[in-house]
Amino acid sequence: MSMETLDMEALPELEPLCIFGTGDLGRSLGMRLLQSGFRVVYGSRRPQSCGLLPLGAQVMTHAEATQAASLIFICVHREHYDFLETMAPHLKGKVLVDLSNNLKKNMYPEANAAYLQRLVPKAAVVKGLNTLSAWALQNGLLAGKQVYLCGDHAEAKQAVAQIATKLGLTVLDKGSLSAARELEDFPLQLFPEFRLPLLIAVSLLAFFFFYLLIRDVIYAFVEKGNEISYRIMVSLANKVFPIVALVMLSLCYLPGAIAAFLQLYRGTKYSRFPYWLDRWMLCRKQMGLLALGFAFLHVIYTLIIPLRYTFWNALVSDAVNKMKNNETTEFSKTEAWATDSFFALGILGFFLFVLLGLTSLPSVGGSLSWREFNFVQSKLGYLTLLVCTTHGYLYGWNKFLLPATYKWYTPPAFMLCLIVPSVVLVLKLIILLPCVDRTLTRIRQGWERNQPKEETG
Amino acid sequence: MSMETLDMEALPELEPLCIFGTGDLGRSLGMRLLQSGFRVVYGSRRPQSCGLLPLGAQVMTHAEATQAASLIFICVHREHYDFLETMAPHLKGKVLVDLSNNLKKNMYPEANAAYLQRLVPKAAVVKGLNTLSAWALQNGLLAGKQVYLCGDHAEAKQAVAQIATKLGLTVLDKGSLSAARELEDFPLQLFPEFRLPLLIAVSLLAFFFFYLLIRDVIYAFVEKGNEISYRIMVSLANKVFPIVALVMLSLCYLPGAIAAFLQLYRGTKYSRFPYWLDRWMLCRKQMGLLALGFAFLHVIYTLIIPLRYTFWNALVSDAVNKMKNNETTEFSKTEAWATDSFFALGILGFFLFVLLGLTSLPSVGGSLSWREFNFVQSKLGYLTLLVCTTHGYLYGWNKFLLPATYKWYTPPAFMLCLIVPSVVLVLKLIILLPCVDRTLTRIRQGWERNQPKEETG
Amino acid sequence: MSMETLDMEALPELEPLCIFGTGDLGRSLGMRLLQSGFRVVYGSRRPQSCGLLPLGAQVMTHAEATQAASLIFICVHREHYDFLETMAPHLKGKVLVDLSNNLKKNMYPEANAAYLQRLVPKAAVVKGLNTLSAWALQNGLLAGKQVYLCGDHAEAKQAVAQIATKLGLTVLDKGSLSAARELEDFPLQLFPEFRLPLLIAVSLLAFFFFYLLIRDVIYAFVEKGNEISYRIMVSLANKVFPIVALVMLSLCYLPGAIAAFLQLYRGTKYSRFPYWLDRWMLCRKQMGLLALGFAFLHVIYTLIIPLRYTFWNALVSDAVNKMKNNETTEFSKTEAWATDSFFALGILGFFLFVLLGLTSLPSVGGSLSWREFNFVQSKLGYLTLLVCTTHGYLYGWNKFLLPATYKWYTPPAFMLCLIVPSVVLVLKLIILLPCVDRTLTRIRQGWERNQPKEETG
Repeated sequence: MSMETLDMEALPELEPLCIFGTGDLGRSLGMRLLQSGFRVVYGSRRPQSCGLLPLGAQVMTHAEATQAASLIFICVHREHYDFLETMAPHLKGKVLVDLSNNLKKNMYPEANAAYLQRLVPKAAVVKGLNTLSAWALQNGLLAGKQVYLCGDHAEAKQAVAQIATKLGLTVLDKGSLSAARELEDFPLQLFPEFRLPLLIAVSLLAFFFFYLLIRDVIYAFVEKGNEISYRIMVSLANKVFPIVALVMLSLCYLPGAIAAFLQLYRGTKYSRFPYWLDRWMLCRKQMGLLALGFAFLHVIYTLIIPLRYTFWNALVSDAVNKMKNNETTEFSKTEAWATDSFFALGILGFFLFVLLGLTSLPSVGGSLSWREFNFVQSKLGYLTLLVCTTHGYLYGWNKFLLPATYKWYTPPAFMLCLIVPSVVLVLKLIILLPCVDRTLTRIRQGWERNQPKEETG
Repeated sequence: MSMETLDMEALPELEPLCIFGTGDLGRSLGMRLLQSGFRVVYGSRRPQSCGLLPLGAQVMTHAEATQAASLIFICVHREHYDFLETMAPHLKGKVLVDLSNNLKKNMYPEANAAYLQRLVPKAAVVKGLNTLSAWALQNGLLAGKQVYLCGDHAEAKQAVAQIATKLGLTVLDKGSLSAARELEDFPLQLFPEFRLPLLIAVSLLAFFFFYLLIRDVIYAFVEKGNEISYRIMVSLANKVFPIVALVMLSLCYLPGAIAAFLQLYRGTKYSRFPYWLDRWMLCRKQMGLLALGFAFLHVIYTLIIPLRYTFWNALVSDAVNKMKNNETTEFSKTEAWATDSFFALGILGFFLFVLLGLTSLPSVGGSLSWREFNFVQSKLGYLTLLVCTTHGYLYGWNKFLLPATYKWYTPPAFMLCLIVPSVVLVLKLIILLPCVDRTLTRIRQGWERNQPKEETG
Repeated sequence: MSMETLDMEALPELEPLCIFGTGDLGRSLGMRLLQSGFRVVYGSRRPQSCGLLPLGAQVMTHAEATQAASLIFICVHREHYDFLETMAPHLKGKVLVDLSNNLKKNMYPEANAAYLQRLVPKAAVVKGLNTLSAWALQNGLLAGKQVYLCGDHAEAKQAVAQIATKLGLTVLDKGSLSAARELEDFPLQLFPEFRLPLLIAVSLLAFFFFYLLIRDVIYAFVEKGNEISYRIMVSLANKVFPIVALVMLSLCYLPGAIAAFLQLYRGTKYSRFPYWLDRWMLCRKQMGLLALGFAFLHVIYTLIIPLRYTFWNALVSDAVNKMKNNETTEFSKTEAWATDSFFALGILGFFLFVLLGLTSLPSVGGSLSWREFNFVQSKLGYLTLLVCTTHGYLYGWNKFLLPATYKWYTPPAFMLCLIVPSVVLVLKLIILLPCVDRTLTRIRQGWERNQPKEETG
């Protein structure tokens, strides 16, 4: 910061950055670089006829542009990389930034950047920035966006990282050029961590939908000749959604309980969990978010019930029948307590669930301390599960012992769906027992049952 | 990182940073700089009597402070810049950071920073950090906040950027000092990108409100002498909101469809869209968010219907009338199917809409890959539009052919509002036809119908 | 960026980073460092038998590892720091990064890092990165996460900050090593800024719950022998929640109004507010979020009313009674207007409240300009308060003058809860009076009534 000697008149001219390719991406990148104060030189096969380019940029032949700059952005499709091989002598010692993407995964046996490095072995190839779209560049939607870099030359990566930082991007170094394939797959991935949870959700949805269809609609038709297929749209859906939500919520906490018992059994935390458990634990957040989605649907489906044609119809029929049969409407306080508690618990459970969901927003979760995150995801999570499970039990408070409940000798769906949450809650209760809890805490602090600890890091 | 030779006893003292101005902003900035480990010197006209200053800072005359530091934060209102002109010889080669803001846009013909540079031509003026409030500085609410810099001297900007980064800020370089005006307008802007969507929303609201007022309330009063103005608060509002929400949602997707047809017609993607289309496309997100707001209002307005006095009243009347006329309540399965489907589609549409809205949260959208963002905004978006439009069609399933629907020979509002979404969906359908889709994909990959491509960047 | 001379064959090997401790944290940190392209050397007491370590890392004795590196991560519990004292001569001039955390606050009289510095006085101790969990490191959930550093050696901090930045972390410098205690308390804090608002919320909840319990349930039992305890679950809760929400919302805006009057009275903005007012103002956001939570509960509690057993029962009874007594259902337009307005204002208030809540999401609030934030939190906030207060007044529009309302000579709870919001709105109205507003604006721009201004910074 020895600015006192700064000579304002003779600032040395900045070395320009070079862009190969005058397509959409090349143009947008150039525009953004110019706006951030860089000088830009385009390398083109026909510098005279390459259409509109951002104001302030120069256009030259590839060879000339290479002379002027030591860092070159390659905004050319992989199919046209051949010309770079013929230019290899000019590119010696230059930094080549490979921004290319493919249309599909595994289109080529080799990552684009690795192919480029093979064509120009004496250049320092850096793969990166390929997650930026021309559209985002044009409209300046870069601030805080995270981009990845990889490459075998630390200095070259550093130079690219500095440029990216100046564009307002957050740069993450993914290591050597062997990570290029991974980087090229990034823009092509479609919610990979949601795949397993979605599969589970769809399976549960399908199973419970058909189970309920058989027990409710088909049973009524076969046994009583009553065609009530209109119940599918709302009544049936509103049974399936809460069931799937509750099961998936409990599946978020089951792997944690299993892991605790595994650690207790093994007496150490230093042996890896089985692969399926690791994978399960890593998609708990996504599982919880899907469960929240179903809970949200359940809430709205429930709230529109009084708007339904069937509700109005049933109410009017009830009033008319009561009048005709000269019945008096009797008020059962037990019924009032039970149904009101059922609703109150449902609301409370949904409220807690929404809180859990809010903390999984990147910006909210990121601002929590370790203890806060732990508190929310564990304490608040188990409380949510407990409240929602009780909500489920209250639903059937007076139906468990009714023979009519067990149509065709099958238990109703809501009983089936209470199994997993109940198991999880019992497991958690065992873990909370003082003697078990003490052992588990010691194991998690590094104590091992079988061998003496060397170091307690 | 040659730390091995680091001599711990004799660390050279850091050069202090200077702050001109001991007002609110100056004090808060100084406090924050001190907390981040910098040394701070205040320059003041009367160093003896300038009130409370943060602990650890020194106060001197302007001239003395200038001697001690090479970087000076100017926390003085533009009206008091004159004294800096008299100090110009002392400020030669110094970095001056202009943090000033004005109370209104266009108060002065020249940006404050440009004026400062003119007063002290030999200093390196950097405009920036002016989006920080004294309040945010005092309370340490800086982490991750984005600030802008501009200036004509790269080294000076670099020095300021380093300080800002140490304060936990994210710095974005906006180029030369000519951008100062833009930076000074930043803290004064009030949702500029919401202006056009809000205008459209208000126009639609007004049009449909009066259209419905005439058809529903005034028609009933004029033709039947029935004063039903009480319907304005909920019934009418709950017709206007979904209509505006649906029209605005479809207006999010219309410009994309128009752009596709324009590209097909022109046979190239390299000619710019007309200005109005560009502007329209850039406010699609804001348009969608407003539409989501109206959809949210529609949902709650719908859900409170059974709580309304009119609902209770109508239900009791229905029951009493049925009894009196000895009617039996007949249950129409078609009606049940239709209304339940109507509700189910509405809920599903709202659910998808909320998902769309969630991905427009900066922290969520920023963590999506290009393909994921594309999937959500395009596939999921069109699905939402399709579901919501079907919800609209189902609303009028048995009303389209009824003569009573066309009061005063005008179509009901819900028919009007289905026009734009239907057009968008038809356009999208045409684009999805294999032959059209193939051509469009080729055009978007850079192929041009009329001229041979030079390079495929 | 003089890359042209970059010799690709002979890149000098990077100096490795050293990690003391092969526990969970040490292993995870090493793995992440290796993935980011660093070389890693572990220091261990028994290099031959320290279990699984990440691929690519070397293991040596502590002394050997110290020779190889100039920066050492201490991933050892504080209880085992003694061995570092004996190694002090080897550690001279090295950077030691203390990542340790304690299980409880105030376990030791001295911060861990200060203790370490005392043991090894010639090393440069940097406290930091202690907010990272082994789990987050293992799963690469670091991007954009904010970490803190402190230490007495600027260069040492700089070196650690560079490494952290390469891991994708955002680094915040918290100053000298004396801040170590604060950093060590970070992972142990549990929503500290929510403590006061939660206390207020719980007090209000308890007060209004018992107030309503006495007036509604106990009064009915004592005076009329009517046991209606079933009303606690939903009816009573749905009275307490909106009351607490409204009071807490108004408590968000009361301190601002008090501050304005204090500034008007003192004639200056340069004297500090009393401590309680400062503290109150700093927890306004949390207060508002809790209020939003209660408002959310109120909305869902209200929406399930038509689903309740009591609703159905009351409706059927009403119809049956009307029939029996041969009454005609009369429709009161005033009632319809009043209740519909009541609902419409409630919905609008909740909608505005949700908007306020959205802007308090870190990623949304961070993207607002100063004027936008001000507009939302002040203008929109007061509008929300006004709408919600009017919603409250409309609730009691025809009850204020009814003697039956004042059971046991106490006013109903909804009247009590309207006091604070009404006071806040009146205060705001006074502040908005042109003469008051002008003086206040001048004071806030730095004008002082009693003494001449020196500088207008």
